[in-house]
Amino acid sequence: MTAIETGFAKKHLLGLEELTGSEITHILDTARSFRQVLDRPVKKVPSLRGVTVCNAFFEASTRTRLSFELAEKRLSGDVINFASGGSSVSKGETLKDTVRNIEAMKVDMVVLRHGASGAPHFLARNVDAHVINAGDGVHEHPTQGLLDLYTMREHKKSLDGLNVTIVGDIAHSRVARSNIWGLRKFDTRVTLVGPQTLLPSQVEKMGVGVTHRLAEGLEGADVVIVLRLQLERMKSGYLPSLREYALKFGLGQRHLDVAKDLLVMHPGPINRGVEIEHEVADGAQSVILEQVANGVAVRMAVCFLVWQSAGIHAETDDPATTLV
Amino acid sequence: MTAIETGFAKKHLLGLEELTGSEITHILDTARSFRQVLDRPVKKVPSLRGVTVCNAFFEASTRTRLSFELAEKRLSGDVINFASGGSSVSKGETLKDTVRNIEAMKVDMVVLRHGASGAPHFLARNVDAHVINAGDGVHEHPTQGLLDLYTMREHKKSLDGLNVTIVGDIAHSRVARSNIWGLRKFDTRVTLVGPQTLLPSQVEKMGVGVTHRLAEGLEGADVVIVLRLQLERMKSGYLPSLREYALKFGLGQRHLDVAKDLLVMHPGPINRGVEIEHEVADGAQSVILEQVANGVAVRMAVCFLVWQSAGIHAETDDPATTLV
Amino acid sequence: MTAIETGFAKKHLLGLEELTGSEITHILDTARSFRQVLDRPVKKVPSLRGVTVCNAFFEASTRTRLSFELAEKRLSGDVINFASGGSSVSKGETLKDTVRNIEAMKVDMVVLRHGASGAPHFLARNVDAHVINAGDGVHEHPTQGLLDLYTMREHKKSLDGLNVTIVGDIAHSRVARSNIWGLRKFDTRVTLVGPQTLLPSQVEKMGVGVTHRLAEGLEGADVVIVLRLQLERMKSGYLPSLREYALKFGLGQRHLDVAKDLLVMHPGPINRGVEIEHEVADGAQSVILEQVANGVAVRMAVCFLVWQSAGIHAETDDPATTLV
Repeated sequence: MTAIETGFAKKHLLGLEELTGSEITHILDTARSFRQVLDRPVKKVPSLRGVTVCNAFFEASTRTRLSFELAEKRLSGDVINFASGGSSVSKGETLKDTVRNIEAMKVDMVVLRHGASGAPHFLARNVDAHVINAGDGVHEHPTQGLLDLYTMREHKKSLDGLNVTIVGDIAHSRVARSNIWGLRKFDTRVTLVGPQTLLPSQVEKMGVGVTHRLAEGLEGADVVIVLRLQLERMKSGYLPSLREYALKFGLGQRHLDVAKDLLVMHPGPINRGVEIEHEVADGAQSVILEQVANGVAVRMAVCFLVWQSAGIHAETDDPATTLV
Repeated sequence: MTAIETGFAKKHLLGLEELTGSEITHILDTARSFRQVLDRPVKKVPSLRGVTVCNAFFEASTRTRLSFELAEKRLSGDVINFASGGSSVSKGETLKDTVRNIEAMKVDMVVLRHGASGAPHFLARNVDAHVINAGDGVHEHPTQGLLDLYTMREHKKSLDGLNVTIVGDIAHSRVARSNIWGLRKFDTRVTLVGPQTLLPSQVEKMGVGVTHRLAEGLEGADVVIVLRLQLERMKSGYLPSLREYALKFGLGQRHLDVAKDLLVMHPGPINRGVEIEHEVADGAQSVILEQVANGVAVRMAVCFLVWQSAGIHAETDDPATTLV
Repeated sequence: MTAIETGFAKKHLLGLEELTGSEITHILDTARSFRQVLDRPVKKVPSLRGVTVCNAFFEASTRTRLSFELAEKRLSGDVINFASGGSSVSKGETLKDTVRNIEAMKVDMVVLRHGASGAPHFLARNVDAHVINAGDGVHEHPTQGLLDLYTMREHKKSLDGLNVTIVGDIAHSRVARSNIWGLRKFDTRVTLVGPQTLLPSQVEKMGVGVTHRLAEGLEGADVVIVLRLQLERMKSGYLPSLREYALKFGLGQRHLDVAKDLLVMHPGPINRGVEIEHEVADGAQSVILEQVANGVAVRMAVCFLVWQSAGIHAETDDPATTLV
């Protein structure tokens, strides 16, 4: 298979900012092979046999953790879960000490979610293990960005030429940032929509357009990514009321009536009736559940590619055709 | 092996109400094969190799979760655990969205425990995965019912002709309900014993006898199932005091002195000195720990049978004779 | 390989008090084989294939649990985790009933951490499974003791002739006790250093020296084990202040300046700036992270040896040379 034969030289996946368009394309092509594996009765390949992966989640996240764990197990990896609740972190241990301990235990790969932006980069500088960023602060969530790009590409044939609109709390969204970095590696136009208080301060520097009116932001869009509204933002005075937010920025059927080809995406979990109407989330233009399925395939591809970058598993067969 | 050759056509195990006596017998026969596997030095068979099972527990339960996890791993399945504590449920996600996400991740089998009666049925209607009910509200706990039937059958040779007495908080017990539904598929007589406040309101419709006097309920009984008293019931005014409950409904040695062949069962965990005396729980007529061992075998049988119902693993060898 | 051919007859590992020097040497030799496995690209051997191990942690501990889980998975065991938070223990179940249930589920090996001294011994008397003590009350933490001995031996060639100093809260430390028991099986001299309130009352009976002055305790020492100061001791009046403790008992660069060959060890997690200075923890004489790596190898050796003591896996190949 060409995609895999060409190789992938990155040891870690820390963010989409540092990837080239060609590297992203390579990941998406590999993910397509794994996506086919997921439609088989037996959804398992031996790519990570004998490899130990530690899912180190310093922030709670069921979906992302489950998606990674499924991906790792379907690659035949040995999986260790570590959540900060039951960890030495509560005994006052620093991230550095935790990291060094994981390292010392000879874990091969660490999937890290952490509340501090840059934590995975710090980890990658300090351990021998492969590091995959599963979300760091408000910085990046690269596998979410990749699964979004994958889903767009499957439906729109190519990323080049796409108009993508992102709606919601951009300022606090690592999902938005990873999407923007990823999309900018292709010939795309990105428009951000949200209230002034929820947009990043120097957004124009990112090479994207901005508007505070949803209808305007959707004009000419091929894809809309609706972000989850973190309800805790309300308390901190960023928003007047849920009802007003839903009225101004909630995606409704009325928007789709004038945009028949608009692809509706959401990283989940959904606040139905807030940032998206019930019928839109479940409607024909929504690919929200496809995103979830694609997420497992994309994570299989990322784990596989960073591992094989070391040249250790050069003998591994095509993952899409070899059964366990 | 005849039991397995004849096949089992159910895709899910949602409750014993909807099974025939012949289907229950089929499960129990298969469980007997797996029970032999558990007495071997190496207790593992390859029946679910490459199959991903998600234990989705929306209510805490160590025993049932451990029993299922052991069963799944001994069938060589890949196991993902998901407990509501760390889940998106706390972010306000609905069961429907959770379910759809599990589905989208291409999990093959979901073992669901949920506080809402009917939750597994809802899940089964909405996902492609096989669904096994690990306890839903006050409705059913079918694998507990099956392991109870298995244990009775092993000791009393046949379910037909048995007199079974169930003692305790029947109204709130899914264990009692699954036992009643299961036993009624055979030629059995079921008698319920408990205070008026803890008996279901329209109990006669279930085809069972009722009494409020334990000694009377035990007359002629072959088997007694003592239910765990949920201590939190006390607060809600269902019961006058633990001491009075123990005096009136606690199973003691004095009851066994006049019933030498009575088999004593309890789903655990036990409140020693409340619903059952210490010496009875540990006595010669108690099969409480056998129930636990049988539980793993019964759950192996259920996972195996619902999976092979799809005809996917038609080539699987006899689970009782093939080692990993 | 001689070490494995000679066999190991203990079914459980409950403490170092009951082991002979020869048995300890046997474990350390076996651990060295596994330590080599950990430096390979694929760090897995088939020694526990088909064996179910339950990590039953009634006290929270990320590091020890992760270390055991990694060890077990690298031996190809099937691992079940059980933490008291989500267990029936919170429903008031006694340890005895929990133990009997684990037993009944036909678990092959139980790794137990428990707040009560003697809990693993109780378990070993009551179940068929192999039992490994992962820390019981203030009694023993034998795998920590073994990994400490392993690390000393690697650096100092032999345990015989060693002078080892242990600094800190000896009275409440199972790590100290396991080290003392282990070291006393060899020709060693052990010196304890700490404030009067944190030393055991009848310490001379253990055959060790005592001093309240750190500089004095370090004279002639080959190895120093710095214990973690449990910060909660402060509240209970054992200590005047953290600052005073750090001044009197904290290991600093000034101590190492006069002891160039002193090996610095710590069981982790570290309170930097309290019992050990930052630069000492990370300095050239510190082997703290080596201890962590050695811990996985020692736990692999212990799990392997207690399992093969049963003679069940007599056909198992040399773990250090056979890949999965």
